[in-house]
Amino acid sequence: MKNINKIALKKNQDFNIDYYFNGIKNKNITILSRAITLLESTKIEHQLLAEELVDKCLPFSGNSIRIGITGVPGVGKSTFIESFGNYITENKNKSIAILAIDPSSTKSGGSILGDKTRMNALSTNSKAFIRPSPSAGTLGGVAKATRQSIVLCEAFGFDTIIIETVGVGQSETEVNSMVDFFLLLMLAGAGDELQGIKRGIMEMADVLIINKTDIEQTDKVKLAKQHYKNALHLFPSNPNGWVPKVETCSAIKNENISKVWDIIYEFVSLTKTNGWFDEKRKIQSKYWLSETINSSILNTFYKNPKIKDLLKELEDKVITNQISPFKAARILLKEFCA
Amino acid sequence: MKNINKIALKKNQDFNIDYYFNGIKNKNITILSRAITLLESTKIEHQLLAEELVDKCLPFSGNSIRIGITGVPGVGKSTFIESFGNYITENKNKSIAILAIDPSSTKSGGSILGDKTRMNALSTNSKAFIRPSPSAGTLGGVAKATRQSIVLCEAFGFDTIIIETVGVGQSETEVNSMVDFFLLLMLAGAGDELQGIKRGIMEMADVLIINKTDIEQTDKVKLAKQHYKNALHLFPSNPNGWVPKVETCSAIKNENISKVWDIIYEFVSLTKTNGWFDEKRKIQSKYWLSETINSSILNTFYKNPKIKDLLKELEDKVITNQISPFKAARILLKEFCA
Repeated sequence: MKNINKIALKKNQDFNIDYYFNGIKNKNITILSRAITLLESTKIEHQLLAEELVDKCLPFSGNSIRIGITGVPGVGKSTFIESFGNYITENKNKSIAILAIDPSSTKSGGSILGDKTRMNALSTNSKAFIRPSPSAGTLGGVAKATRQSIVLCEAFGFDTIIIETVGVGQSETEVNSMVDFFLLLMLAGAGDELQGIKRGIMEMADVLIINKTDIEQTDKVKLAKQHYKNALHLFPSNPNGWVPKVETCSAIKNENISKVWDIIYEFVSLTKTNGWFDEKRKIQSKYWLSETINSSILNTFYKNPKIKDLLKELEDKVITNQISPFKAARILLKEFCA
Repeated sequence: MKNINKIALKKNQDFNIDYYFNGIKNKNITILSRAITLLESTKIEHQLLAEELVDKCLPFSGNSIRIGITGVPGVGKSTFIESFGNYITENKNKSIAILAIDPSSTKSGGSILGDKTRMNALSTNSKAFIRPSPSAGTLGGVAKATRQSIVLCEAFGFDTIIIETVGVGQSETEVNSMVDFFLLLMLAGAGDELQGIKRGIMEMADVLIINKTDIEQTDKVKLAKQHYKNALHLFPSNPNGWVPKVETCSAIKNENISKVWDIIYEFVSLTKTNGWFDEKRKIQSKYWLSETINSSILNTFYKNPKIKDLLKELEDKVITNQISPFKAARILLKEFCA
């Protein structure tokens, strides 16, 4: 996927901003795809063009529900998204764009969504757009491209955006900073399968869906549901007034998927009424502004060649208690400003 | 407290590093107290001297058990620390230093430990040192001073260090980055009292102590204990191999305090054997190095007067979707580097 996009970008690198913008506004899916490839490019000229494009699309963005979906490998994320996507496009007249954040994909040898064949029906659904995770890049870079992709997908006209993550890394915090609603996919049998879920992720969930009720024993599912409910109950309440829910489904048999949509709808109604929907988006925008500023400044520092060597040297001294972290930091800053 | 210390510092501001260092090595508690006041000073000349002092004490530090204690107001932190401190100094031949992190104390009109009278017996215990939280400052500044205070207290000879926080802010993350063991104080009756505990704090706890068993009904305490156990069980396992425990006590009646010490002792034995005790401290040192570097660099940026005004202006535009966070960040960086 990556290679195909790269070729496309190379051939079309003299395309200007109007090409991309008009393509998106005219619902040309190929151009949307190319525009996202542009966002993912690390070349400075592409990034500048990408930023212009994002800004041009900004007035046409915002009118979607952004949903984060996470869960450990094997929980059935692809099947769930396929089932959910087909349900809302067919029954709720929605259009859906699916983006993925998976900075680990370089290691695992392919993005979680790299193989569209895992979402057979959805990939041929004209009201759905599936975009695999970029197969390389830092978390910050991938997350930034995904955040920008949301703007383009919304300007294109998609009213439902899914951001998928693999649920084992810190990418969930990034996702939480760009979605309205966070869905955690789980399996029955409390305990074991949680080993793969990083600490803190459960606390982010607005809904916890126990999948694969078709193959799990009914009493095991019931017990798990009660366990999770108890656990969520112990967490502090959300400022937005939403009480996280626990639900069950069988994605592969399309069972109870409508219930999931109802919960999301209920959440959106509540938070749009009490003002938290907009408030969260404002907080997210501020977060992205400061994140972008901070990462750019720190990049400049850590990429400085004279800093690199000195940092390694001082880090060793700090670990072996030869120097305090505070003095080491002062030495490094002095060198940087020299 | 702050004022007294400030006067002391002013009068003695020409004291040199040997004065502080020798005072600490000779177990002069007044000089230790003055040295900590020096750490808390925001004046650059004091900070430089403080850093030298910390580095000079560094070879004599590290030989303590650092314990973080948190819980919402009303849970009985002061009483617990008093009971715990007196127990280990009298029965386990330990010496204890108690430091507090509470950046909110300016608002609440006094530090949580500001009134030593709340720890009557301990404040007259010759093997205990109670240091109130600085009554002003940013979280970063207070946390840095506390981290440095640990080094001085250890060089002084204290073998048990308590870092107390109020349990409602993000200071717990800071504390977790400087302690070996994290103790969360709770009340019976799951649910309600958790409202005050911030999300994520429970997941940090190595032990959860239900206090005030003297006034709570026995069955309520039992139920709470089981609830908390179930909740902790749902969290992913710790890489250090430790399974967080739940225990009960009555601090005011000195009941079951020995059990708390036994748990801490068990934790330390386990992690010293499997290497995680040292490993965590190394990770913490690296964390403090990069935290100090990052905050210093970002400080330089955000304190720049031409940045301040522009940032406010662009932030408003970002929130109202007139400009993307990414473009706004680029404009700011360009201005900064100009």
